[in-house]
Amino acid sequence: MITLDLSATTARDALAGYGEGRSDDGAVDAFARATWSHIAEPGDAHAGALITALGAAAALEVVAHSAPTPLAGLDAAAARDAWARWRPRLEEGVAVRSLRAAERVGLTLLTPGDPEWPAPLDDLGLHTPAVLWVKGSLGVVRAATPIAVVGARASTSYGELVAADIAAGIGANGGSVVSGAAYGIDGAAHRAALAVDAPTVAFLAGGADRAYPSGNSKMIAEIAVRGAVVSELPPGSAPTRWRFLQRNRLIAALGEATVVVEAGWRSGSLNTAGHAVSLGRPVGAVPGPITSAASAGCHRLLREYDAVAVTGADDVWELVGGLGREARAHAGQVRPAAAGHEHPRTDDATRVVDALSARTARTVSEVARGAGLSFEHAGALLGLLELDGRAIRGGGGWRRP
Amino acid sequence: MITLDLSATTARDALAGYGEGRSDDGAVDAFARATWSHIAEPGDAHAGALITALGAAAALEVVAHSAPTPLAGLDAAAARDAWARWRPRLEEGVAVRSLRAAERVGLTLLTPGDPEWPAPLDDLGLHTPAVLWVKGSLGVVRAATPIAVVGARASTSYGELVAADIAAGIGANGGSVVSGAAYGIDGAAHRAALAVDAPTVAFLAGGADRAYPSGNSKMIAEIAVRGAVVSELPPGSAPTRWRFLQRNRLIAALGEATVVVEAGWRSGSLNTAGHAVSLGRPVGAVPGPITSAASAGCHRLLREYDAVAVTGADDVWELVGGLGREARAHAGQVRPAAAGHEHPRTDDATRVVDALSARTARTVSEVARGAGLSFEHAGALLGLLELDGRAIRGGGGWRRP
Repeated sequence: MITLDLSATTARDALAGYGEGRSDDGAVDAFARATWSHIAEPGDAHAGALITALGAAAALEVVAHSAPTPLAGLDAAAARDAWARWRPRLEEGVAVRSLRAAERVGLTLLTPGDPEWPAPLDDLGLHTPAVLWVKGSLGVVRAATPIAVVGARASTSYGELVAADIAAGIGANGGSVVSGAAYGIDGAAHRAALAVDAPTVAFLAGGADRAYPSGNSKMIAEIAVRGAVVSELPPGSAPTRWRFLQRNRLIAALGEATVVVEAGWRSGSLNTAGHAVSLGRPVGAVPGPITSAASAGCHRLLREYDAVAVTGADDVWELVGGLGREARAHAGQVRPAAAGHEHPRTDDATRVVDALSARTARTVSEVARGAGLSFEHAGALLGLLELDGRAIRGGGGWRRP
Repeated sequence: MITLDLSATTARDALAGYGEGRSDDGAVDAFARATWSHIAEPGDAHAGALITALGAAAALEVVAHSAPTPLAGLDAAAARDAWARWRPRLEEGVAVRSLRAAERVGLTLLTPGDPEWPAPLDDLGLHTPAVLWVKGSLGVVRAATPIAVVGARASTSYGELVAADIAAGIGANGGSVVSGAAYGIDGAAHRAALAVDAPTVAFLAGGADRAYPSGNSKMIAEIAVRGAVVSELPPGSAPTRWRFLQRNRLIAALGEATVVVEAGWRSGSLNTAGHAVSLGRPVGAVPGPITSAASAGCHRLLREYDAVAVTGADDVWELVGGLGREARAHAGQVRPAAAGHEHPRTDDATRVVDALSARTARTVSEVARGAGLSFEHAGALLGLLELDGRAIRGGGGWRRP
């Protein structure tokens, strides 16, 4: 038997600033949940069942016993398995160390019911995360309809452009973009949201303090400033294949809809879409050439998951039930297929670069006006140009390198 | 009052060869229907109602009256309108002249119930055509599941390639391709069917003796040899906008499914798809880049008409309920998105040209073997190369020019 000190004093001491505004019971619960984020893997429904039945602290005390005891809500075999999974990870002080580390790197600890806790995650039921470790602020998604925009790492330039256009169209019309900070589609979507100064949220499969993939670390740092970088795992945790798949459920749950822009036949984005479907959230898929392997997963979503074909940000607003009245006012601008827009993209990028100055930082509005493009489209292109090193963000706007 | 001679003797005399195998009543009916194909525009439901109520000959006699009389199944105003539409076109001998012309140019006259009459057209109800004027043989579609493959005249090379691949996949697996002989997608589909020696049927908006568009006259002549060129209008009739729209209902009715490959936002192909929907036939739409105006209509079908996303010929067989067992055996070969097939198309065409000889005609199988491509894909490419003048068909196979 491990002796756990789950007193309010110890909990408050460990939580430090994270304890403010919590009752004694609340502090003990938060401290116990922080421990749970160490001992149970993301999405462990047995942990969820036990925490729901007993509360996080009492559930922890059951695990602390030196032998498996009957666990509330679990049959004997499942209880034995669960205990065998969790017990080896239960060390005294493990949560204290994480909370210190979190404080050092500027993460916030959120527990269900906290003011910033995103209520949509509760739809996950027994799969609801025990806590969220957050860099930045999740409050942004209250005011800005969160939409998940995800897709393949092995994206094409077509997919990146479309992801950027859709994300900018979401961001410029009162939405926020939720994604996974990966290379390819995820990154293009986050960058376009940042380019139009829209909130964006990245869920990571490892600790929220570990920028993964490292090539996107600058973008991930910007996301934390403009929105939030979130993980259910404690700081320092490594991403694993399992954690990527479970991370996807958080993206799907936070998004009011999930849009898959490009995905291979077996892409992980189909897993995100699958979570969205099982949560009853609408799923959109962007069509692409049937000759492109990078669109095969999207076409599969259209055929097998009854996904809706999404051809622009307007279609996304339709998915979530006609939100974004502003979106409709911009209709003509954001629907690329509408008006002979067939191959102007390369030229548009050139026009955006032309509209930048090397000396003076310009806002997206100024760049859009200069380039003769819509705000959304200019924002999307700036996000992509940043990726290529052809535009630099910072100091009150955008510049040429 | 026009005096119509609708006696069996006159009818048999006018019908000449077309009268063979018909009873006296049948001959009179066929002769009267040939007249109806002159006086009523395609899809005139009032004509359909009158013919259904009285029979074609008695219905004609009503029109011959010098003033509108109550017409069976029509209210007084509709009867007056219909009579005013039909009467000016009713001239003695008009059908005789058409039948002579048809005989001269080698057209067959088909009436409902004739052995070659395609029963699926009867699903059109009051919109069923009075007759069909056919160059070639419609019998081909009995043995080979007819699939409508249609699309924009203003197609892209992507659309033409996909149309050709799908049509070749249909043709090579026991299907026949039904389309409208237009430039763009229609032509690519017919040509690919011809290339794999599959039956193909073209419905024209003008007379079946008038190759329209004239740029496709060589192809239309080949279709008549390998399948059928069909119109509900008498020989010599000019195509009009109305007739194009009504022609589309015949394509949709003959096809067990309708697949739209590329279509602009307001393309006539959406009209064909609409007819298929109202006939309860499945509709497929091929996705494409959302940045391509030529795919906007397909995406609209996916969003608004609940069309199924079609990514290859296999998906077409699924549409019609899993016909074409052979199709599944070829799955790996005809699904372009399946296996890293992203940009090999241009090279494949080169390989097909390489596999041709200027002196010896080669079969599609020989070309496919020589080029290391599937039979369907080689056939599709030969159809497209013919369009560009880079391959010549005839004399037992394919040659280089």
